[in-house]
Amino acid sequence: MQAQLIALDWGTTSLRAYKLAEGGQVLEQRSLASGIMQLPKAPRIINGRECADGFELAFDEACGDWLDAQPDLPVIACGMVGSAQGWREATYRDTPANVANLGTSLQTVRSLRGVDVHIVPGVIQRSRLPNVMRGEETQVLGVLQSLAHEANTDLLIGLPGSHSKWVEVADGCIVHFDTFMTGEVFAVLSEHSILGRTQQRGGSFDGQAFDRGVQVALSADGDIGVLSTLFSARTLGLTGELNGAQQTDYLSGLLIGHELSALANAQRQRRNSVHLPSIVLIGNAQLCGRYSRALDACGFTQVTLAEQATERGLWQLAVAAGLIAANLSR
Amino acid sequence: MQAQLIALDWGTTSLRAYKLAEGGQVLEQRSLASGIMQLPKAPRIINGRECADGFELAFDEACGDWLDAQPDLPVIACGMVGSAQGWREATYRDTPANVANLGTSLQTVRSLRGVDVHIVPGVIQRSRLPNVMRGEETQVLGVLQSLAHEANTDLLIGLPGSHSKWVEVADGCIVHFDTFMTGEVFAVLSEHSILGRTQQRGGSFDGQAFDRGVQVALSADGDIGVLSTLFSARTLGLTGELNGAQQTDYLSGLLIGHELSALANAQRQRRNSVHLPSIVLIGNAQLCGRYSRALDACGFTQVTLAEQATERGLWQLAVAAGLIAANLSR
Repeated sequence: MQAQLIALDWGTTSLRAYKLAEGGQVLEQRSLASGIMQLPKAPRIINGRECADGFELAFDEACGDWLDAQPDLPVIACGMVGSAQGWREATYRDTPANVANLGTSLQTVRSLRGVDVHIVPGVIQRSRLPNVMRGEETQVLGVLQSLAHEANTDLLIGLPGSHSKWVEVADGCIVHFDTFMTGEVFAVLSEHSILGRTQQRGGSFDGQAFDRGVQVALSADGDIGVLSTLFSARTLGLTGELNGAQQTDYLSGLLIGHELSALANAQRQRRNSVHLPSIVLIGNAQLCGRYSRALDACGFTQVTLAEQATERGLWQLAVAAGLIAANLSR
Repeated sequence: MQAQLIALDWGTTSLRAYKLAEGGQVLEQRSLASGIMQLPKAPRIINGRECADGFELAFDEACGDWLDAQPDLPVIACGMVGSAQGWREATYRDTPANVANLGTSLQTVRSLRGVDVHIVPGVIQRSRLPNVMRGEETQVLGVLQSLAHEANTDLLIGLPGSHSKWVEVADGCIVHFDTFMTGEVFAVLSEHSILGRTQQRGGSFDGQAFDRGVQVALSADGDIGVLSTLFSARTLGLTGELNGAQQTDYLSGLLIGHELSALANAQRQRRNSVHLPSIVLIGNAQLCGRYSRALDACGFTQVTLAEQATERGLWQLAVAAGLIAANLSR
């Protein structure tokens, strides 16, 4: 089957490349550590010229051989590659943002090979505390394509990660979203704070310790807020109630529990109802597993997982942008 | 004036040494970076013997010359030096803990010089989420000594720092306390998270940016919790509302605001009253200035600063332990 598109999901710490065929079918995929904050540095010859530009080097590593084989393949990319620190800034689109229409606003950068890379713009919500996303808008589109249309109204799309996003969609538009820095806070506390000193990491998942953390966040003890409950990840170790391995998953559950407890309150307030929306989760399977567990404890009863959201979204945007011949688009 | 006591405030990252005379008067004081997690390593001759023990080396640097001049001076120490990772573990005392009586529970370690170092035990509160302190119990004692007795009932003692403590005292006993990891969270986020990438640190204090952070925490926007509002320290930079220097003080205000907002709620609930207690703050003057500002915004109307709490507390404990001749104790 002939490839039709190279699709890149290029974030802060990773770069995923997909070679897609007719209808968006995945022929091949790769994952590199060349996120925009950790680009390759060793100069190399690209297209007959010595090159030291990190973006060019990463791009070449990710899909140079695919382009060697098919030099006319169109290329589309989403994520932090379009930020001010990226390869070429793609100006944010304001909420409400029609995700299918983002394909008409692609920014381009011409690579050393002469191939244009089409970059998807992120979305900004200009609320009192502004919110931004880059990459998640593409995943949201990928999910919407695969959902029954009527389901969208009472739906919240969750994208757990370093910075979790919770996205409300109406009529194909992103109308509101919230960000929680839960994943990054977990990482920096585990690696650099006193909590990490007694943690043992890398073991198998301890569901009981995780659930205990979630329950603390939801309990009356959690009302004092995460800046205070955090300390229990240390003191429950001092009193012998949590060993080093348990402390890690307890902290994870505690942080995710605080996130989801706040999310549930915010959703009830926004909807002026005790009823909570259905959830579609997009992301890393292990992390989505943790979130599913905690969502259930928080009273979100309908949770489903979406697959291949990024590559589907990128394919749709490439079609909308006219990068794919119409007869091959479905 | 003749020295009567060497008093050490020996924490995780610093070691402060005081040479005290009759009545606890400070003759000399020193500040070293030799906290228990960053002890000196270079071996030296102490008391005629080669020594590579970090605690001995730090102790010798802090007050070896004072002991050379007066070898019989008693030595007392509080703080993390009495933890499991310290020089000698001094078992926690349970709440309610009479702080004046802690002097009867000192742990001792004999130094290479043959001098005993008397270590003050910390305090543990065995609540569902346990809480611990080491060093702060001594500061609380130092403050109580200087307060009119009747004032203690409606009082909350605040000890801002890496791990802020808020301590309730009744009849000379620590009856309840809460810990917030605000200072350490600020440090790790500034040094290791994406928020630090656009921050400029080391400039002069920007009160307006700080107050803005406090107000966000107290506003309806703050209800979604600190894991979410944190991200605004980045996005308000992206929208040009906060420059790099302002982002630092905004983040500081935001975190302290979340801490104090939660503290106010917890206090109202514990007291079953809208009335908030008077506050006595102990600690670094600059940090106490920030907390005073934020406490005022949170509705704590009576805030005073306590001076010399550590050295006064250590003196009192040394007197209670019989380390000082009775006729010199006042």
